Amino acid sequence: MKIGGKPYRTIWVEDDGWSVGIIDQTRLPHVFETVTLRTADDAAAAIKDMLVRGAPLIGATAAYGICLALRDDASDEALESASKKLLSTRPTAVNLRWALEEMTAAVRNLPREKRVIAAYKRAGEICDEDVETCRMIGVHGLKLIRTLAKSKKKGEPVNVLTHCNAGWLATVDWGTATSPVYQAHADGIPVHVWVDETRPRNQGAALTAFELGHEGVPHTIIADNAGGHLMQRGQVDICITGTDRTAANGDVANKIGTYLKALAAADNDVPFYVALPHSTIDWSLHDGFEIPIEERSADEVTRMTGRTDKGSIVTVDITAPGSPAANPAFDVTPARLVAGLITERGVCDASVEGLLGLYPEMKS
Amino acid sequence: MKIGGKPYRTIWVEDDGWSVGIIDQTRLPHVFETVTLRTADDAAAAIKDMLVRGAPLIGATAAYGICLALRDDASDEALESASKKLLSTRPTAVNLRWALEEMTAAVRNLPREKRVIAAYKRAGEICDEDVETCRMIGVHGLKLIRTLAKSKKKGEPVNVLTHCNAGWLATVDWGTATSPVYQAHADGIPVHVWVDETRPRNQGAALTAFELGHEGVPHTIIADNAGGHLMQRGQVDICITGTDRTAANGDVANKIGTYLKALAAADNDVPFYVALPHSTIDWSLHDGFEIPIEERSADEVTRMTGRTDKGSIVTVDITAPGSPAANPAFDVTPARLVAGLITERGVCDASVEGLLGLYPEMKS
Repeated sequence: MKIGGKPYRTIWVEDDGWSVGIIDQTRLPHVFETVTLRTADDAAAAIKDMLVRGAPLIGATAAYGICLALRDDASDEALESASKKLLSTRPTAVNLRWALEEMTAAVRNLPREKRVIAAYKRAGEICDEDVETCRMIGVHGLKLIRTLAKSKKKGEPVNVLTHCNAGWLATVDWGTATSPVYQAHADGIPVHVWVDETRPRNQGAALTAFELGHEGVPHTIIADNAGGHLMQRGQVDICITGTDRTAANGDVANKIGTYLKALAAADNDVPFYVALPHSTIDWSLHDGFEIPIEERSADEVTRMTGRTDKGSIVTVDITAPGSPAANPAFDVTPARLVAGLITERGVCDASVEGLLGLYPEMKS
Repeated sequence: MKIGGKPYRTIWVEDDGWSVGIIDQTRLPHVFETVTLRTADDAAAAIKDMLVRGAPLIGATAAYGICLALRDDASDEALESASKKLLSTRPTAVNLRWALEEMTAAVRNLPREKRVIAAYKRAGEICDEDVETCRMIGVHGLKLIRTLAKSKKKGEPVNVLTHCNAGWLATVDWGTATSPVYQAHADGIPVHVWVDETRPRNQGAALTAFELGHEGVPHTIIADNAGGHLMQRGQVDICITGTDRTAANGDVANKIGTYLKALAAADNDVPFYVALPHSTIDWSLHDGFEIPIEERSADEVTRMTGRTDKGSIVTVDITAPGSPAANPAFDVTPARLVAGLITERGVCDASVEGLLGLYPEMKS
């Protein structure tokens, strides 16, 4: 997708052929800046400090982290140690584990001198596969938007509500929840996106709005509190969010507050879809309530970063001094509230049967 | 209630016996500062610029504005002109009109030299009546908390979730939604309050947390997104919010996002109560969806005010540059989601029958 008219992916190998470029997403939307990763520690820090975020991009960054580690030391011990360090950065991210297992499998049985090349090859494939996966999610999700567009008056947009950033900045390209939107927009279908600001980290107001703006997609930022009201007033045609982890029964863990929007959608007959690559499905989990929920720093609730009128970036305290804050980062939306799961293989019911229909190879 | 250990009301007559003290609520929670009103113009500006907010406090401030006007000029013309000016500050505030009508009725038939004393007497009564109304809401709400406390292990708190600020800062004292909490705390019942930060204006994080902190009530600020998750995990025993306007059928209009919490409460069998003085009931409205919803400035969504580490107060832009924002200020929670209404006369069902049971004089 584009930033300032120029096409980007979220992660790339630099012209030197080995160092890895990323966008520092902690500085968006205020400052657009790229960062070069040169060691596995750089990659781990980029994940931990959320310069990169979003399950697929975390996976891709970890994959390149292994490449960078092997450049320094291609031993089994170094591989294992880098893998362990990278895995510990974000315990909720299932893609992270998957990418690290893929990387280990790609190099484990090779002699040490062949490991680096094989690692870069596999990391590149992981990125390309993610782009294709996200593109296909868009192809399938586009059909839902096209159907909704048919019942609209000429020129009237399909109103999509999304939460957090399951956009291209969270993946390598296209995004998951945004991929159908970008493809509808490219196809000339009028779409308008209600962007939940997504407190406390404001990924919606900061990242999703930034993406949509640079891609020219009409959108409006709203407080997370507003979505229910808009649905009551008939101003939302479809909700599409991403997910960090999907249980085998179709329950989805996603950014805190997703569950509230799913409740409002159900109460107002608005279809609530979740877009996901197969890699976020955790077949070992019977239901979503087994997913551990990360508790993040209270500072994310009590402090806010923004641009002053003079253009400098400052962080301010916004809450009553001395009051404690809590910050659960995800919640679980039960499958009963989900109209369907949009995957790279098609759209299915949020259920064991639905998922196994698309992924029959997972039948035990 | 207390600030820094010292008991306060939100409005008072100063020691000189005539000027009127208020708290400048626009500067909370960052700076605590009181302001002295000496003229009707001062009172009008305090309302208009939101140094005071909350329907009961706006009414009380307007009442004292009439007192200050009459001190300067006790003529009918001055009374009428001050009344008009005060009414124009917040034209939709029902309590404002009511308080001004009460003040006019109290002085109209008196000789000019007796008007000032009568005005101060009536303004004082309006304040005292509000305090008593809020105290009684607390007395009735306390019973709900006491019942919940009985099922708790010794020392384990009753967890109350509230949205926005329906606290003593919005009234003259006690608050509405907070009154049961303050009374439980004073009674030695362990309570803990989950404070929704309440974007976009952050009245929860700024005002409710400030109040609770100064009163010594254990509390935790959360993003508005977090409440559903906490309810799923059994960490909320009861929700209590205020309301700006209640329809005759028990539907309640309250700060945007209230509806989402009511949905989550219903989905998790958490009782959702709304605390209100009778003055917020609009008997002319058949249901809540007739209530017009104020659309406020997008700046409230896109900008945020806070304290820098050096202690200065700054306002920053927090969203993607150029992205538009929408800001509906209230939503309507249907009566079906409300476990009960807590009024100064007792707790009733959120229904025509429930309300008429407490207010039989309203049967037509």
